[in-house]
Amino acid sequence: MTTRLKTTPLYTSSLIALAMAVAMPASATEGMFTPDQLPEIAKDLRAKGLKLKPAQISDLTGFPMGAVVSINGCTASFVSTQGLVVTNHHCAYGSIQYNSTEENNYLEDGFLAQDFDAELPAAPGSRIYVTVDVDDVTDKVTGDLSESLSGEERFAAIDSARKALVSECEEDEGHHCNVASFYGGLQYKLIKSLWIKDVRLVYAPAGPIGKYGGDIDNWMWPRHTGDFSFYRAYVSPDGKSADYSEENVPFTPQHTLKVSGAGLDDGDFVMVAGYPGRTSRYARLAEVENTFDWNYPTWQVVLKDWIGAIEGASEPGSDARIKYESRLAGLNNFMKNLGGQIEGARRVGLVDRRAEREAALNAWIADEAPDAGYAESIEALDALAKETAMAAQKSYWFGNATRPQLYNIARRLYRLSKESEKADADRETGYQERDMDRMKQSFTAIDRRYDPAVDKAEWMVFLKGYLAQPEAQRVDVFDTALGLNGSMSEAEMSAMLDRYYAETTLGDLDTRLALMEATTEELEASDDPFMQLAVALYDYGMEREGARKDRAGRRATLQPKYMEAIIAWQKAQGFTAYPDANSTLRVTYGNVMGGSPKDGLRYDPFTTLEGIIEKDNGEDPFNSPQKQLNLINAKDYGSYALKSIGSVPVNFLTDLDSTGGNSGSATLNARGELVGLLFDGTIESVNSDWDFDPRTTRSIHVDSRYMLWVMDKVDEADRLLEEMDIVNARGR
Amino acid sequence: MTTRLKTTPLYTSSLIALAMAVAMPASATEGMFTPDQLPEIAKDLRAKGLKLKPAQISDLTGFPMGAVVSINGCTASFVSTQGLVVTNHHCAYGSIQYNSTEENNYLEDGFLAQDFDAELPAAPGSRIYVTVDVDDVTDKVTGDLSESLSGEERFAAIDSARKALVSECEEDEGHHCNVASFYGGLQYKLIKSLWIKDVRLVYAPAGPIGKYGGDIDNWMWPRHTGDFSFYRAYVSPDGKSADYSEENVPFTPQHTLKVSGAGLDDGDFVMVAGYPGRTSRYARLAEVENTFDWNYPTWQVVLKDWIGAIEGASEPGSDARIKYESRLAGLNNFMKNLGGQIEGARRVGLVDRRAEREAALNAWIADEAPDAGYAESIEALDALAKETAMAAQKSYWFGNATRPQLYNIARRLYRLSKESEKADADRETGYQERDMDRMKQSFTAIDRRYDPAVDKAEWMVFLKGYLAQPEAQRVDVFDTALGLNGSMSEAEMSAMLDRYYAETTLGDLDTRLALMEATTEELEASDDPFMQLAVALYDYGMEREGARKDRAGRRATLQPKYMEAIIAWQKAQGFTAYPDANSTLRVTYGNVMGGSPKDGLRYDPFTTLEGIIEKDNGEDPFNSPQKQLNLINAKDYGSYALKSIGSVPVNFLTDLDSTGGNSGSATLNARGELVGLLFDGTIESVNSDWDFDPRTTRSIHVDSRYMLWVMDKVDEADRLLEEMDIVNARGR
Repeated sequence: MTTRLKTTPLYTSSLIALAMAVAMPASATEGMFTPDQLPEIAKDLRAKGLKLKPAQISDLTGFPMGAVVSINGCTASFVSTQGLVVTNHHCAYGSIQYNSTEENNYLEDGFLAQDFDAELPAAPGSRIYVTVDVDDVTDKVTGDLSESLSGEERFAAIDSARKALVSECEEDEGHHCNVASFYGGLQYKLIKSLWIKDVRLVYAPAGPIGKYGGDIDNWMWPRHTGDFSFYRAYVSPDGKSADYSEENVPFTPQHTLKVSGAGLDDGDFVMVAGYPGRTSRYARLAEVENTFDWNYPTWQVVLKDWIGAIEGASEPGSDARIKYESRLAGLNNFMKNLGGQIEGARRVGLVDRRAEREAALNAWIADEAPDAGYAESIEALDALAKETAMAAQKSYWFGNATRPQLYNIARRLYRLSKESEKADADRETGYQERDMDRMKQSFTAIDRRYDPAVDKAEWMVFLKGYLAQPEAQRVDVFDTALGLNGSMSEAEMSAMLDRYYAETTLGDLDTRLALMEATTEELEASDDPFMQLAVALYDYGMEREGARKDRAGRRATLQPKYMEAIIAWQKAQGFTAYPDANSTLRVTYGNVMGGSPKDGLRYDPFTTLEGIIEKDNGEDPFNSPQKQLNLINAKDYGSYALKSIGSVPVNFLTDLDSTGGNSGSATLNARGELVGLLFDGTIESVNSDWDFDPRTTRSIHVDSRYMLWVMDKVDEADRLLEEMDIVNARGR
Repeated sequence: MTTRLKTTPLYTSSLIALAMAVAMPASATEGMFTPDQLPEIAKDLRAKGLKLKPAQISDLTGFPMGAVVSINGCTASFVSTQGLVVTNHHCAYGSIQYNSTEENNYLEDGFLAQDFDAELPAAPGSRIYVTVDVDDVTDKVTGDLSESLSGEERFAAIDSARKALVSECEEDEGHHCNVASFYGGLQYKLIKSLWIKDVRLVYAPAGPIGKYGGDIDNWMWPRHTGDFSFYRAYVSPDGKSADYSEENVPFTPQHTLKVSGAGLDDGDFVMVAGYPGRTSRYARLAEVENTFDWNYPTWQVVLKDWIGAIEGASEPGSDARIKYESRLAGLNNFMKNLGGQIEGARRVGLVDRRAEREAALNAWIADEAPDAGYAESIEALDALAKETAMAAQKSYWFGNATRPQLYNIARRLYRLSKESEKADADRETGYQERDMDRMKQSFTAIDRRYDPAVDKAEWMVFLKGYLAQPEAQRVDVFDTALGLNGSMSEAEMSAMLDRYYAETTLGDLDTRLALMEATTEELEASDDPFMQLAVALYDYGMEREGARKDRAGRRATLQPKYMEAIIAWQKAQGFTAYPDANSTLRVTYGNVMGGSPKDGLRYDPFTTLEGIIEKDNGEDPFNSPQKQLNLINAKDYGSYALKSIGSVPVNFLTDLDSTGGNSGSATLNARGELVGLLFDGTIESVNSDWDFDPRTTRSIHVDSRYMLWVMDKVDEADRLLEEMDIVNARGR
């Protein structure tokens, strides 16, 4: 049994030919399953090698799922009964950076707490979410909705039902709840998580281990990154969620993962439980075309100018540049990802394949389910997808032209003043009482990410792009508010913007925070040019939001019908359809496997310590600590070597299905022991967010043997090695 | 028996460990052997798989060596009794370009002569050299030289002896002769070649096949380049070498190669006979250090500026840019190669390895041959290597500052006027009667490669670099002649150069050619600023040349002694030392073999037709002809598929030893049949010019099955397919 979406015969045959040509199994393992789906695919799980009972993995509060948590957009796992949590170095990066000073540069040198007292508070806002309950609440969300509702009304009704469920759920103090939508609204689940707010940094290897290869190796194989770090969860002495306090004690999780000192070999079964963020595998052709024919290519041009503007306005090494390093890294990452997606879409023939798939589905509906109402819904959904694509094109340039950071502060402050006039339950998501802490944190964090000269340089790029669009893509109220006209010289535009930065007071943290209490009238009377712009654009913004909600509301009736058809169509062929990723807990599985990203080229499944020596040139990001190089040169492998490769494995590849948000996920072996951490996918895989390509999709993991070797030999992290339950199933 | 230079135990063991880690044979096959050495290594040749008798390959006028020829710096082979010659597309590029017009764009569309009459003259100066005799003339060159000669005297004596031998040899009309130095002057051989001057273009596939992948794929694997083309050799009706004439008839070679339609599989024996240009495997440490610590890094900076200057002074697509495309391609190629060499040197630890090898040789000399005079010669050679390195540093900037093309025309014209005052035998090489045709061709070709604005932009870059050097690296007479001083502004310098381009008449072809007859006095009276500069710099140039000859003369006594030591040292260990490449016929051999260029990454030995589809995005250089794409999509493999890969192989890798000049070499199987053409090495291999690394060195070949498939299916070149002797040893 496979779980791949049906492909057309044409594609399948050429794919199989390719796969044969490179002598590889064609069956990489597509599917991001919700835990409750696992019994349905039990047979394949066992065939692939799972030794645990699939039903056991379905139990969110049992072993091993109970050990898997979400943290700051990443996945993590409990690995000791004292709340020790392991995740990626890049997921702990913010906390390592937050604690670093010139004297104690943990980013560069690493950090190891020698005892509990030495553990450092994580970056503000760091939260661990331990899923404790998942309830199907579809009936409560959409059960009573009349068919005659307008899109906007439907959106509001769903939104209100979701908020009520969250609010009720969160009455259980110390918990965080949300209602997640599956299959585009076919199913809603209320997810309740224990909310751990006191998170501390325990251990991070040196930067030249933890982010070895840096941006150069990002998305790349071969890889040699020690992308792991440790946090610890703390709770109040009575075991409840609590803000940071010296009184707090380590949290005792219900379940923990054993760490395997024996690890895997080529072909072994692997499984990953984690929180993948977003995929678009069921997107309709209109969206695919809009994305690959217009949105992504447009972004490629804009990103080039955007990056150029930041670099042009900030000298390398300057304070301004330091503030934007993270954004630059993000933009470069996005650009690399876009290149990979566009290339991948071309390689697999994404647009043609999607058209073929839609035709095949239509044919099945016509033959097998002509009266289910699928065809009509799909037709309406396609019209809506086109409408949405058109709206996105107009929004794109206005959206860019309104990126200045202080404008967005102003916009959110003014919106907050409006929302605050309502009862909490009626407020827009993001403006409720439960959101205020996060808003404060984000207003505070601006100080570390904002420089007026760079912000202005960015704005100039966006405004020039906006003004270059045809009249119809322009927004009158924006042009009027800003005083824009097509014949403005660059110097005039620059002088006009200068006033914004000279006269605003929103650059001041106290001012920003104080304004969170301001009334609508007070803000409307403000002299601040960004606030005046926010007030001027408010109505237009609400109009756009209304239109967006209306489209979302209409989609909420059509998409479920489409997904119902997909599920039925797949089922008729013996396949189990799974929902697109939505940041909820999913299980994916597969095997350790190299790959052939291109004709004539092959990825080995493992990299070795010796590969570090090979890459190392002493310069960032290939500057291993000398101690590590000496250990490798001395072949001091300890008990961590893998016989079949003659060395300690550093990173490995698997064919399992992952995407952003899976970062930090424990990679489990057939017995549910931690054998590594997932931290990346290869560049050839990124297009799988749209269309899973079994030939090229590979996830990249850091091997538990490398983690243990670094902890043992390089950093001598004996306290943690003793604290964890390390099992050596292969006995060395 | 292996032929690798002995390596220190430290390196050998870590290399073997790496090789084991990637599960590859450690024994790539080093060695560019002269044909007469083959009996010495017969055992290894047979062990590797050769079916012919090694002694047979030693016979230059027998089969298969008699079929191998040299053409315009490349290697080629006779593949029919009517003088049909196959070589690389990139070796025929100049001739394809020369015959292309806007209406008949053979570079883009390819060219296929339907009969003899339709065959087109190759680019002017195209010559085929068929080696007919090789004589050891060491005694005649150095036998009588007194030990007491100065360096310059020794150089002159050797030069004079070589010229006399060449002159005597060339009395046999229609032949071209040269005296090549082996082992740095330990051995001299007089090489006599039949000189075929009427060369015609017969067939070239479309550019998007012949240079598929272009500069992007240059040095890269995986590769999918159809890098082959066909010439035909013509001679006078009585079978003599003759200039182009309609009367001429196809040349009948003594021997031709059969073309294999069956080809190779992974691991099969291969052998290549060709004309590798230059290697530096015996360079002393001082030269290695000067190259990798100073020369190459300096070039990297200069190349960046140089390329920038050309691009800045010529709009893409402009006439000026078209004239410089070839130079730009060359500079970019050089830059890529430098990067590969520097990276490779770091990877293998070139400098340390060379130091270790020299220490090991010294130790052996001290133990085994203390009285042979080796130690003293090597010590003196090292002092000379340091002196040469210092001189090279000073020459480097002056050399760059005197790159303007018309200056070099003037310099050569003035030198010619001086040399013409002497008897022909006494003239400097390059200025003898036998060189005049080539000089005319080069003066003519300038028109297609020169643009004053670009030339000036280049000169500005070099002059700025020159002026940035310390006083000691400057040349007084140059500064005076040009009126240079350190405090000149860029504008002043630019104005000063403008005069050169405004006032020179050397941009005119007729003027240049006419001045080849001018006397020294006439040129000294010239108003041309470039000529005045040439006259002003003449004495300094002669002084430099004298110093260079003096060093060469001294080296001519020391280097042979050093090489004698190397040969004896290698022999004592059972190895056969081979001379550095010197553009003479060499035989290398090995096996079809993928590789592991890096930890975690593997090259497959073959690429397939499907890989073309995979790369093809419709844009140059990945824009296959639609007919080819259709044939691949239809899996119309004909009889050319390789079962083990399930497709037609396009390119393949071997572990044999090659370098620039090997391009176009026939790749022969164990029976001496043509199974492909060597056309490139991987980027990881380029450092092997200094230090052969068996792990990473791989040559890239176009497969004969792909050549035949293109000729048969895509271009329907039936005439040629019938003309060649195609053997299908595997019967399909």
